[in-house]
Amino acid sequence: MMNRMLIDYLRTRKALVDEALEARLPREDVEPKHVHAAMRYAALSNGKRLRPILSLAVGELGGCPVERVLGSACALELMHTASLILDDLPCMDNARSRRDLPCTHVSFGEATALLAVMGLVALSFDLVSADADASVRSASSEPVIRILAEAMGTRGLVLGQHIDLAQTGCACDSMDLLEEVHRYKAGALFLACVLIPAHLAGMGADQVKALETYARSIGFAFQITDDLLDARRGSEDLGKSTFVTLLGREAAERKARVLVQDAIEAIRLFGDKAEPLRALATHVTARKE
Amino acid sequence: MMNRMLIDYLRTRKALVDEALEARLPREDVEPKHVHAAMRYAALSNGKRLRPILSLAVGELGGCPVERVLGSACALELMHTASLILDDLPCMDNARSRRDLPCTHVSFGEATALLAVMGLVALSFDLVSADADASVRSASSEPVIRILAEAMGTRGLVLGQHIDLAQTGCACDSMDLLEEVHRYKAGALFLACVLIPAHLAGMGADQVKALETYARSIGFAFQITDDLLDARRGSEDLGKSTFVTLLGREAAERKARVLVQDAIEAIRLFGDKAEPLRALATHVTARKE
Repeated sequence: MMNRMLIDYLRTRKALVDEALEARLPREDVEPKHVHAAMRYAALSNGKRLRPILSLAVGELGGCPVERVLGSACALELMHTASLILDDLPCMDNARSRRDLPCTHVSFGEATALLAVMGLVALSFDLVSADADASVRSASSEPVIRILAEAMGTRGLVLGQHIDLAQTGCACDSMDLLEEVHRYKAGALFLACVLIPAHLAGMGADQVKALETYARSIGFAFQITDDLLDARRGSEDLGKSTFVTLLGREAAERKARVLVQDAIEAIRLFGDKAEPLRALATHVTARKE
Repeated sequence: MMNRMLIDYLRTRKALVDEALEARLPREDVEPKHVHAAMRYAALSNGKRLRPILSLAVGELGGCPVERVLGSACALELMHTASLILDDLPCMDNARSRRDLPCTHVSFGEATALLAVMGLVALSFDLVSADADASVRSASSEPVIRILAEAMGTRGLVLGQHIDLAQTGCACDSMDLLEEVHRYKAGALFLACVLIPAHLAGMGADQVKALETYARSIGFAFQITDDLLDARRGSEDLGKSTFVTLLGREAAERKARVLVQDAIEAIRLFGDKAEPLRALATHVTARKE
């Protein structure tokens, strides 16, 4: 896929996701208005929508009509949004701004931010469940609910955030530990982004396994690229180790490139049809923001 | 059901639920150990288990083997537990103790308490989904996931907690407002406790409707009884209106009794089989703790 085509691809998909999120999030003129406003504020501002775009691309690869995976693609973005609100809270990373805007708890207060987290999580399960139900080829919706629950729970986001908090300011930082934080904290949700549409599309075990490797690799490359961009902007959290502080810039860039090659190699079995996924993998490390 | 029989019934069901919760909660010697310890602390200490016992009774009424509704009964208790941790946080009700023990955030810190909430919610969806999948009579698991998501989200617990926070210290207290807080905050989960097993057991629309009325009535009676017990102990939160402060003790007791009669009336169509549910309804207002 040429660069121009990729840009168009990302733009149209992002517009599709933005529109779907807008339609699925509860309205601000319905009670609890303040909580709904916080949910919309957190979910609708400035996201790159990489996770739902990845999800749509996998659904497409599996021959699933876009409307049958769009709800669960939104669900994954909303779960991601909920995890960001949580991470920024005073008792967690105590951040003040995110994506150049005040954090949700700064704009709406902690109580409402927490209620927004709960509202987003509930909506996320609801949307995945609705997609699973509408999917004729999937024998049962249980796998997809389980994938989302696992990505969220103490073997996913919760575990990653716990290790992240435990290692802050700790002298025993190591690549192993950092890889572990990342594998659960961001990696679990990237994994869900390929597994859920793969199940909805009724893909076979070999295909699912290939996509799993792909997701792990680009999830990891995505995190390293985030650290590189933070270092370039000087916006890294100085109390925390990153892939850049541990490896140095050049080695970190090299590692991200190798991971992208791993990702592309993993989905070779899909042939030409996987062109959007290959382009997305390349885009992950090439992005400038 | 005689009083003695009811006590035995509650005791055996509570033991069953306690054992099932113990087995389904992640172990404390598995990472994230601290989060798992907080989840177990909050879920395993001193609960009356009324919600899961209600759930089991409805499953039984619908002819569902207990092992097919036990997971979702646990799920409802875990969702309730998560909501209690959340309500007690400094930015919410700022409570220090619950059920005669320090609150989860007091014992484990706020960050871990929040991660425990997320872990419990994820586990809750996982358990309901597994029960739905194993249920042969239910055509789809989508309704049960949706019921749980709705009980949790901005039309359930989140809405109730939002109204509760908004009315604290507000002079405009009224019965209407208090009923509304209750309907969402506790009522939504009571409703889920009958709707989920009813769906798993494949009950018809008339039966589901009867159980809905039953759940709303006993949920409301349960809350009024809670307020009466708090007033008797002198442990009510003085900043908040309760059914006792608004109605007076006698009228509150009368209202609870009428609600129990409504609940019993609603399930008349089930005949003798509904004896456990009738006994549970009576127990809700007769309890001493």
